[in-house]
Amino acid sequence: MTRTVIESKTKTVVIGFDEPFCVIGERINPTGRKKLAAELEAGNFATVEKDALEQVACGAMVLDINAGVVYNSNPNPNETEPPLMTSMVRLVQGLVDVPLCIDSSVPGALKAGLEAAEGRPLLNSVTGEEDRLELVLPLVKKYNVPVVAISNDDTGISEDPNVRFEVARKIVQRAADFGIPAHDIVVDPLVMPIGAMATAGQQVFALVKRLREELGVNTTCGASNISFGLPNRHGINAAFLPMAISAGMTSAIMNPVRQVEMEAIRAANMLMNHDANGGEWIRFSKVLEAVEGGMSFAEASASASQAASGRRGGRRARA
Amino acid sequence: MTRTVIESKTKTVVIGFDEPFCVIGERINPTGRKKLAAELEAGNFATVEKDALEQVACGAMVLDINAGVVYNSNPNPNETEPPLMTSMVRLVQGLVDVPLCIDSSVPGALKAGLEAAEGRPLLNSVTGEEDRLELVLPLVKKYNVPVVAISNDDTGISEDPNVRFEVARKIVQRAADFGIPAHDIVVDPLVMPIGAMATAGQQVFALVKRLREELGVNTTCGASNISFGLPNRHGINAAFLPMAISAGMTSAIMNPVRQVEMEAIRAANMLMNHDANGGEWIRFSKVLEAVEGGMSFAEASASASQAASGRRGGRRARA
Repeated sequence: MTRTVIESKTKTVVIGFDEPFCVIGERINPTGRKKLAAELEAGNFATVEKDALEQVACGAMVLDINAGVVYNSNPNPNETEPPLMTSMVRLVQGLVDVPLCIDSSVPGALKAGLEAAEGRPLLNSVTGEEDRLELVLPLVKKYNVPVVAISNDDTGISEDPNVRFEVARKIVQRAADFGIPAHDIVVDPLVMPIGAMATAGQQVFALVKRLREELGVNTTCGASNISFGLPNRHGINAAFLPMAISAGMTSAIMNPVRQVEMEAIRAANMLMNHDANGGEWIRFSKVLEAVEGGMSFAEASASASQAASGRRGGRRARA
Repeated sequence: MTRTVIESKTKTVVIGFDEPFCVIGERINPTGRKKLAAELEAGNFATVEKDALEQVACGAMVLDINAGVVYNSNPNPNETEPPLMTSMVRLVQGLVDVPLCIDSSVPGALKAGLEAAEGRPLLNSVTGEEDRLELVLPLVKKYNVPVVAISNDDTGISEDPNVRFEVARKIVQRAADFGIPAHDIVVDPLVMPIGAMATAGQQVFALVKRLREELGVNTTCGASNISFGLPNRHGINAAFLPMAISAGMTSAIMNPVRQVEMEAIRAANMLMNHDANGGEWIRFSKVLEAVEGGMSFAEASASASQAASGRRGGRRARA
């Protein structure tokens, strides 16, 4: 029974074979978002706040925090990322109670995030590259956190799924040398675009099965990569996710503010018998009804989640 | 390599492990359609014509023809169904060139359909019930057609998937006694509603794998049954179909005039590497664009299929 335990100050999320699919919200990331990068450089965190609240309302169970911004005023990320990571982690965990995923390629930023995060965050990421293994695994051990392991190494990303499997195996073995158990490794087998590689879907489904059966690890992926370059990407993502889930994929780093993908995941949870009595599906269907009534998915989700927390906490009166 | 070959006068459709998912259009069926039943009794076939054209335009590769109507003027289906089946088969195969699926519980209607159909239709269905086996398998042998085998028997429909598997095995064995090969049996493992049985999805996925690996047969199902009784049924169906496809399901009897389900199937075909270069996906995306522009899915599909046959035949000029 592989269970990867992630915690915020008050909340525990388990990634596991017998758990609902874990949606890790990807939006708090200035990479490719120029407007957000400029805001962060100016000390404006309004978009981060909005992204945190919106993603959680829409169903994110974990929030990825990436501070990978290059300031105009200082192009050295080793100097700028760590303090920004600290600020973002503190801000987000003050707003929402979900566990965080500390995401950086800058060692100081990973460490700053680990220091600032309450509970037991997920670290994102280690690869099979020697310098990353030597740098990240000691942090994983020291802070006793789970880690995302991306299956590329010093030779790059192999198109051969067997090579990617062996990279994953190597990371799991190296982690074991540090005393890190396999259930604290969440492997990303790397999703290739189906438009560029016709076998990309079958590769991932087969890899997920092997990773689960042979290495006993949980898995994750950047789900939307499967549809890169093709028209109607949501339609492809929404078929890919249930197929990956039925192959055994247990989490994805993705945009939870997309109705089509979230609908596919919630339906797949029920079809995997991970939604007792369909309660989550029925609640989600009410959000979809509100969307049909003219609200955006984010608005309808926020409204439903406020109503639910009002009922739970008893602090919000109905209008 | 299991290949179930179905033919119209001019067209061959193969249901198979390495083929795109076979969509069998279910709409030409008066069961539960009072208006259609009344029309048929009055000799009005307008709805049948519309359903035939619309389903094929939307992507049905085979059309199911069911004449199961109870006339007010004559309540004996043994008298009314056979001639109606003959009329409907002749009408439909005069309109569209896809293979047919002759669907009845009335022996005379099955025979009438087999006599009237050109090519090699699919027969729907035999069960594990003794009287059905003795009645239908000789027809399958005599007319050399493939047959849908539903995994219930004289004891009814078992909730235990192992029992349903054994019923399927019995049908395959009995068919073999008649000289009918396994590749001419398309097993329906029976899809239970997930709202009533939380393991219904996992049962089907596991059964499809076993049917394929242990009996070497193709599979089909009444796909929409999975979502019976739940809100937002299309969302469940649209996750179920890709999951069933990745488990190895090779066809379904379903309504092809539903965009969400057809989108899921076309995406799943690409993800299974059954859509070379994504050509079908790209064509389908253009239909979705027309839907976004305000057309119904049926209209947009018909328009796209007319344009395609115009290009192929060269007989239709562009306006």
